Amino acid sequence: MTELPPGGGPAPRGGAAPELVESGFHLENADAPFLHHGLNLADLAHVLDLRHRDLVPAAAAATLLDLILEAERTPAEEFPYDAAFGEPYNSREAYFVSRVGDVAGWLHAGRPRREAVRIALRIHVRRQIAELAAEAGRFASVVADRSREHAHTLMPDQTYLQQAQPSTFGHYLLSFAYPALRDARRLLDELDEIDCSPGGAGCVNGTRLLDDRTVVADLLGFAGVIEHTRDAMWQVDGFIHVLATAASLVSTLSKLAEDLEIWSSAEFDFVDLADGFTRASVLMPQKRNPYSLAIIRGACGVLIGRISGFLAVVKSPSARSDNLIYAYGEVPRALDLALRITRLATGVVRTLQVHPERMTEELNRGYSQATDLAEHLVQSCDIDYRSAYLIVGRAVRDASRDGVPGIGITGERVDAAAREQLGRTLGMAGTDLSAVLDPWRIVQSRSAPGGAAPDEVCRMAGDLSSRSAQLTTTATDRLAVFDRTERGVLATARATASREENP
Amino acid sequence: MTELPPGGGPAPRGGAAPELVESGFHLENADAPFLHHGLNLADLAHVLDLRHRDLVPAAAAATLLDLILEAERTPAEEFPYDAAFGEPYNSREAYFVSRVGDVAGWLHAGRPRREAVRIALRIHVRRQIAELAAEAGRFASVVADRSREHAHTLMPDQTYLQQAQPSTFGHYLLSFAYPALRDARRLLDELDEIDCSPGGAGCVNGTRLLDDRTVVADLLGFAGVIEHTRDAMWQVDGFIHVLATAASLVSTLSKLAEDLEIWSSAEFDFVDLADGFTRASVLMPQKRNPYSLAIIRGACGVLIGRISGFLAVVKSPSARSDNLIYAYGEVPRALDLALRITRLATGVVRTLQVHPERMTEELNRGYSQATDLAEHLVQSCDIDYRSAYLIVGRAVRDASRDGVPGIGITGERVDAAAREQLGRTLGMAGTDLSAVLDPWRIVQSRSAPGGAAPDEVCRMAGDLSSRSAQLTTTATDRLAVFDRTERGVLATARATASREENP
Amino acid sequence: MTELPPGGGPAPRGGAAPELVESGFHLENADAPFLHHGLNLADLAHVLDLRHRDLVPAAAAATLLDLILEAERTPAEEFPYDAAFGEPYNSREAYFVSRVGDVAGWLHAGRPRREAVRIALRIHVRRQIAELAAEAGRFASVVADRSREHAHTLMPDQTYLQQAQPSTFGHYLLSFAYPALRDARRLLDELDEIDCSPGGAGCVNGTRLLDDRTVVADLLGFAGVIEHTRDAMWQVDGFIHVLATAASLVSTLSKLAEDLEIWSSAEFDFVDLADGFTRASVLMPQKRNPYSLAIIRGACGVLIGRISGFLAVVKSPSARSDNLIYAYGEVPRALDLALRITRLATGVVRTLQVHPERMTEELNRGYSQATDLAEHLVQSCDIDYRSAYLIVGRAVRDASRDGVPGIGITGERVDAAAREQLGRTLGMAGTDLSAVLDPWRIVQSRSAPGGAAPDEVCRMAGDLSSRSAQLTTTATDRLAVFDRTERGVLATARATASREENP
Amino acid sequence: MTELPPGGGPAPRGGAAPELVESGFHLENADAPFLHHGLNLADLAHVLDLRHRDLVPAAAAATLLDLILEAERTPAEEFPYDAAFGEPYNSREAYFVSRVGDVAGWLHAGRPRREAVRIALRIHVRRQIAELAAEAGRFASVVADRSREHAHTLMPDQTYLQQAQPSTFGHYLLSFAYPALRDARRLLDELDEIDCSPGGAGCVNGTRLLDDRTVVADLLGFAGVIEHTRDAMWQVDGFIHVLATAASLVSTLSKLAEDLEIWSSAEFDFVDLADGFTRASVLMPQKRNPYSLAIIRGACGVLIGRISGFLAVVKSPSARSDNLIYAYGEVPRALDLALRITRLATGVVRTLQVHPERMTEELNRGYSQATDLAEHLVQSCDIDYRSAYLIVGRAVRDASRDGVPGIGITGERVDAAAREQLGRTLGMAGTDLSAVLDPWRIVQSRSAPGGAAPDEVCRMAGDLSSRSAQLTTTATDRLAVFDRTERGVLATARATASREENP
Repeated sequence: MTELPPGGGPAPRGGAAPELVESGFHLENADAPFLHHGLNLADLAHVLDLRHRDLVPAAAAATLLDLILEAERTPAEEFPYDAAFGEPYNSREAYFVSRVGDVAGWLHAGRPRREAVRIALRIHVRRQIAELAAEAGRFASVVADRSREHAHTLMPDQTYLQQAQPSTFGHYLLSFAYPALRDARRLLDELDEIDCSPGGAGCVNGTRLLDDRTVVADLLGFAGVIEHTRDAMWQVDGFIHVLATAASLVSTLSKLAEDLEIWSSAEFDFVDLADGFTRASVLMPQKRNPYSLAIIRGACGVLIGRISGFLAVVKSPSARSDNLIYAYGEVPRALDLALRITRLATGVVRTLQVHPERMTEELNRGYSQATDLAEHLVQSCDIDYRSAYLIVGRAVRDASRDGVPGIGITGERVDAAAREQLGRTLGMAGTDLSAVLDPWRIVQSRSAPGGAAPDEVCRMAGDLSSRSAQLTTTATDRLAVFDRTERGVLATARATASREENP
Repeated sequence: MTELPPGGGPAPRGGAAPELVESGFHLENADAPFLHHGLNLADLAHVLDLRHRDLVPAAAAATLLDLILEAERTPAEEFPYDAAFGEPYNSREAYFVSRVGDVAGWLHAGRPRREAVRIALRIHVRRQIAELAAEAGRFASVVADRSREHAHTLMPDQTYLQQAQPSTFGHYLLSFAYPALRDARRLLDELDEIDCSPGGAGCVNGTRLLDDRTVVADLLGFAGVIEHTRDAMWQVDGFIHVLATAASLVSTLSKLAEDLEIWSSAEFDFVDLADGFTRASVLMPQKRNPYSLAIIRGACGVLIGRISGFLAVVKSPSARSDNLIYAYGEVPRALDLALRITRLATGVVRTLQVHPERMTEELNRGYSQATDLAEHLVQSCDIDYRSAYLIVGRAVRDASRDGVPGIGITGERVDAAAREQLGRTLGMAGTDLSAVLDPWRIVQSRSAPGGAAPDEVCRMAGDLSSRSAQLTTTATDRLAVFDRTERGVLATARATASREENP
Repeated sequence: MTELPPGGGPAPRGGAAPELVESGFHLENADAPFLHHGLNLADLAHVLDLRHRDLVPAAAAATLLDLILEAERTPAEEFPYDAAFGEPYNSREAYFVSRVGDVAGWLHAGRPRREAVRIALRIHVRRQIAELAAEAGRFASVVADRSREHAHTLMPDQTYLQQAQPSTFGHYLLSFAYPALRDARRLLDELDEIDCSPGGAGCVNGTRLLDDRTVVADLLGFAGVIEHTRDAMWQVDGFIHVLATAASLVSTLSKLAEDLEIWSSAEFDFVDLADGFTRASVLMPQKRNPYSLAIIRGACGVLIGRISGFLAVVKSPSARSDNLIYAYGEVPRALDLALRITRLATGVVRTLQVHPERMTEELNRGYSQATDLAEHLVQSCDIDYRSAYLIVGRAVRDASRDGVPGIGITGERVDAAAREQLGRTLGMAGTDLSAVLDPWRIVQSRSAPGGAAPDEVCRMAGDLSSRSAQLTTTATDRLAVFDRTERGVLATARATASREENP
Repeated sequence: MTELPPGGGPAPRGGAAPELVESGFHLENADAPFLHHGLNLADLAHVLDLRHRDLVPAAAAATLLDLILEAERTPAEEFPYDAAFGEPYNSREAYFVSRVGDVAGWLHAGRPRREAVRIALRIHVRRQIAELAAEAGRFASVVADRSREHAHTLMPDQTYLQQAQPSTFGHYLLSFAYPALRDARRLLDELDEIDCSPGGAGCVNGTRLLDDRTVVADLLGFAGVIEHTRDAMWQVDGFIHVLATAASLVSTLSKLAEDLEIWSSAEFDFVDLADGFTRASVLMPQKRNPYSLAIIRGACGVLIGRISGFLAVVKSPSARSDNLIYAYGEVPRALDLALRITRLATGVVRTLQVHPERMTEELNRGYSQATDLAEHLVQSCDIDYRSAYLIVGRAVRDASRDGVPGIGITGERVDAAAREQLGRTLGMAGTDLSAVLDPWRIVQSRSAPGGAAPDEVCRMAGDLSSRSAQLTTTATDRLAVFDRTERGVLATARATASREENP
């Protein structure tokens, strides 16, 4: 009666097929490290709940608590998770039976294997979500700091990688903090869904024995209980959104990474990565490669695949195991990747070397003042916008042909262009356009909300800093709650075991 | 000076290449119907803003307002959107120039083409989001109604499509309302991001002329302004999350559709779709095929591709046009599909024919009472859970071999199984197990929160009904705001045009 | 008896639900233009086959042939495809019944609706595959031409966008022809699968009436028959691979597009797109934006979503309609996009303006000779590779600090670096390194197979040209077969109709 | 001079940033086990090539060969791959330098790190492709065997999971062998691309030192050399197609798995999985869950994500590291999953228990003969097809209402239906329809190519068996070549080392 078959129930004749051991059971055990801690906590809470209601004998409860506390002290890598026994929960059961015999069976009283694993996944993932939100907040905070630092660093902003408008590196960089903060906020919203207990759901139709579902939820520090028991067992939408948000967040980092990779080319030379974020070439002694940026960009692609794949996995009927079996590994691994990549991006930005002189040089070589010049003509020459636009376009092309930069366009050039375009001059000859064409003045004129004027950038950066800090605090507070309650359930288990053993 | 080249600026020598006309310009014009209304509104608001600040002459403003109001009265299909002129905004400009000459140029004063299209996309998508949220709420509401109706319809709930536990069709069905409502809530959250105005962002570095960015936002009924101007021009995260939520919502519908397709097989015969949701076979006169379910399931796959594809599109450097060019068609089309599919699913559920007798028949043929029997043995026979589990497993297998259903398992059978498993009986012979094994009593025992007990299902369904109604109201209120403000800007434009023409 | 319900069979009571008409039927009719021609051909071939075996009366056959020939002369947009009648095949049947009454019913003899649509899809897609393969061949051919033209255009090749090695623009560009040709070859391989007839498969278990399945196949110009009838009706793997290959092909074009977008920045200025492939900015008169490149890159993302989505769609049970319903639109639209984009990329490359002087300038500013210098030290100074590598690295850093380009590194600098690195010089002072450091000589030394030496590039380009031409010829030959056989079946139908009418 | 920095070149000041060590380097080292063997072989071949050309001193070559042979005897898990040293190749170099000092540097002579890793990836993946093709062949072969065994097992074939036509389980099952074989063929086609050597590509522009690129290719058993050196270094299309084919193959298995999961429900009860492929429920003693099928189906979703993700990764500029860094882990892991899953599916099919009596029971309860009856009326009653179709539809509905199965439809019922439909009878009363309605006779009539007639199924299965065997042989022959050449290069290395040490 003590042999326990893979699968936990009546043994298949001849045991599990090797093809199954080497696929399903192997794959699930490879995910055991993500679930080990949570399974221990879930098992402890369950025994405490059973004991509390007197549904398990005191001695059995004490034996189980001691055993699970021992498991908790054992790193996942050393615990006998083994595909030969089935999936991780079967491995645990086989091991527990080998240690304490039938007493191990009490773990199943009123609770299916599935529930324990569902709880364990949430215990792992809720922490990852809070960490990722906190890190996204830190990224935004570092971005805000560097933006303030470079609120006066003139730079040509680009579309299609063509110079578009005079701006500053601070204004440019700050634009990455906003989507990161939005995704951090989304993560915290989803945390409210994930940090809920499916405990007490029974198989699917609800529980008869354990009718107060808040006990387990409170022991494990969940912020709430998932109400409908079938929803509690099978919902996947929270995981979908967490993966989508991770992909979205890293896509923001990937955009920045690609920009910086272009800008750290010798031809642009706008920035350099700090050495610690680069890699030398083995064959080519002259090269320091911005390896970190390739890592960030590739990770974005990988994460796109993870959300696509998870959505394809859950395109399946309801209440089928495939809906969640693969989540045990896919979700933790994807979030772990997102976290490492966000930390990397934070480091890259924090240590980035910026070359203001190169940015200014390119700005001064270009024609990004053209829009302002056209608007100046409209306002000062009483012509319509379209005519002004066409005149300036012609003046720019002529200047470019003559090797004259935008900053050097004169009233004479404008008049010449007007003559060709309109058949008359605008009387600009002799006018000093230097103020109109000065990139620095142009930037300062963008003082409306959200614009590139240094004061406005500093104001936004300050606001972002405090919002980022607030968000990171919210996230780390959640982590502290997890720490505290998880330590709490261990302490309660130890105390209960000790009390039952020495009544 | 009046010729207007494709692209709106100085003409390429020889015009746009045919390969480009037939790719980029063709593709963008195919999306014009999604943008037409929003472009008209954006253009009107811009002219009103310019006029308000006296940046455009009164006569020009009146001419433009009249012209755009005429465009608004013209269906998109009849407006000369034509790849030969460039993308839709170029088409508009070419047409406007052909009608009013250089006056058309005022539309560009202080505002890039990009801004108008960004606004138009948001005007279209915000409405779609609200409609989809409202429809998801209606789906949840219909599900809640049908769940209440079937709170007493016994049914075997299944995992792996194997009977697991006695439950009810009401409890089963209700589990689909929860994720739908969560996604509806997520849609409304994202609506807060999408329903913000990028207006007044200038090219990217902010605006000099139009420094009060709330004017356009208010005119167009946006709930707010996107602060940072570069973020305002280029952000994509809101669209990512809207697409992910649409895919998530439809994946819930797809699960239900696949379940129902299985259950409408002759072998299950648990449900039938109403005739209006089926399709007859042309060759096979005996068949009524549940076509609607195939449509729902396939749409889920398509939407998975849409979010995957959009994420791949935005894996691009920052401030490149590809980030949003494809969004103009991909996002509206995906949301339109999600909306049609959600409506279809609502209709399927509303009209679904349920066969309680077949559900009961299968429940009575099966062994879904086994868990309750095992728990009964633990509580009444003083044995541990694991032993009880193994005894019941054996009793079930023996009964199955003998053609006896779960409901017919007797104390004698339990004792026989115990003798083989434990070497002794449990003294169950002669005990009446019918109450323990009665599916109806089992279901009624699941009265803890979230369980299958009819009262609990009705309670939850009631709660869901009011939450769904509330959510649908919130969404339709937003739609009413959009209607009101959009009508308002048209009225203001008419009044302004008329005033300027007859000062 | 003449009313024909949506769905083609016994009418649902009350007709199709509006939610279904506006989802499934609407969606399918939107795809009708892709299927119209193929449905006409498939219907003609079926009537000819039935007539040939005397399974349909002569008069009925003549009536049907005339009617379908008329349909073939009617553009899809004008044919009454209408969701109110069901999907496109139902629309056809409703129309045919309205025209010829029960005679229309012969179209279903021995053939399910499904078969006609499956054939129609293949008739459409086989042509698209051949066109895409031909166009990929043309792209490779144009690339080969431009590569040969620039076999002597020196350029720094880059990794991580950092200068890596002296190379030529010709060698660089040619690297895009190879994957394009491989994908063209894959397309032709898949054409062999797609260009097979599912005709005569019956519903699924085979046909009783039409036992010679080659008749329809030959009439429609298919290269073969799909053997197993269930496989014939339901296989999707060919479409998966066609979509994957289209995405792969466009990902090659996207890489090139992104490279070119970077290189057409003012900072690189290595290339300019021909004006016809750019777009002007409306607000910014100075800008000509490389719009074509954004179109190509975004299309790559869209196509990634199409293959992801199609794979998600077919993650469904076997023999369910969703497996193919969505294919009718998704596959043709994706291939159409790929074709337009490939043509665009061909045009971009064909007309690309290359700036050899800028490429040389950057090459001369850099240190891409370092590897060759290290190898020279190994070969001439009797030191190990690693030491040489470290010495050159130091020499390069010192030169860079001093503003000396790679081409200016002297023996003295090498010795100075060696002294610091090894503690001794290498006796290089006074040695003339100019030959070692000359990019031109370095490139010429890469004469081994596949290398950048101009002769080798020209040899490869010549080889590629003939392989591309051959492949394009193979593809266009297939197109000619399709043209000929499709004209043939129309002629046969006309002749048969005329003969039966005037016997 | 002996310290070796992470990254292999001049040390970054302060070393690699911890954020980078814990992201990029950590991720790459996690993939080292896939590359270890191939890196050893690539390094050995490179040293042999250098020695052969006398580019490395004999003693250094011997030292290196001994060292690498020792590495080859060390399992990857025990080799000091360590993120602190950089990525795996850096780890190797750091270790080699620690063992043999500057001699280790010879490994870089004429070959970049990148080339070694590219070769190692191909050495790993070519074997996986051949194994997967062989296993797909075995799956097809087992399917063919079971199909032949069940060529006479009557079964209702289904569309929309509704009975469509009488068929056999053999005919049904055989339909899965065809796409599996096609994908096996595609894998072998791609093997021809992957099993090519990028060796001798230099950094990117070709090689000066190692101008005979066939030496390394031959030593490593590659079937050819990738010609263009830049293509050789950077191509990804082969990996795209291998991943797409793996996803396609597993999608075929997933369809079968979902069908079988439905059919193993108690309600269908058409099949049972062998016990070894199921899993018991821990809480529910009565359940044996078809766990293997959930594993197969979920794996399909995961693989869809892998190809989507890889395509998103390579949507990047050319010659950037991200294009391939992630391939080192993603491709091997995906192929490993596909291989395990294909083996699992083969095992499931090989051991599947089929219940012919249940299939016949459902067939006899249904109306799948209706199509044949309609055709019989056309042929025997001189009415058109459409009328026959409508009459039979009515007769079926009436029979269904009366509880009469299809097999029990009489001539009287047909006449009654005709009277209602046409207003007249067809004179069928008194006719014996049993032969027309007998599923067995219907199946036997499907004797045309590809049909369900037992002889035809056996013929096809026989053909499939030999094609599968042939394909598996081709794949295993390739594996034998890999084994032989890999053993060969080790032997050559040992002999060379020994010769150089004892000249």
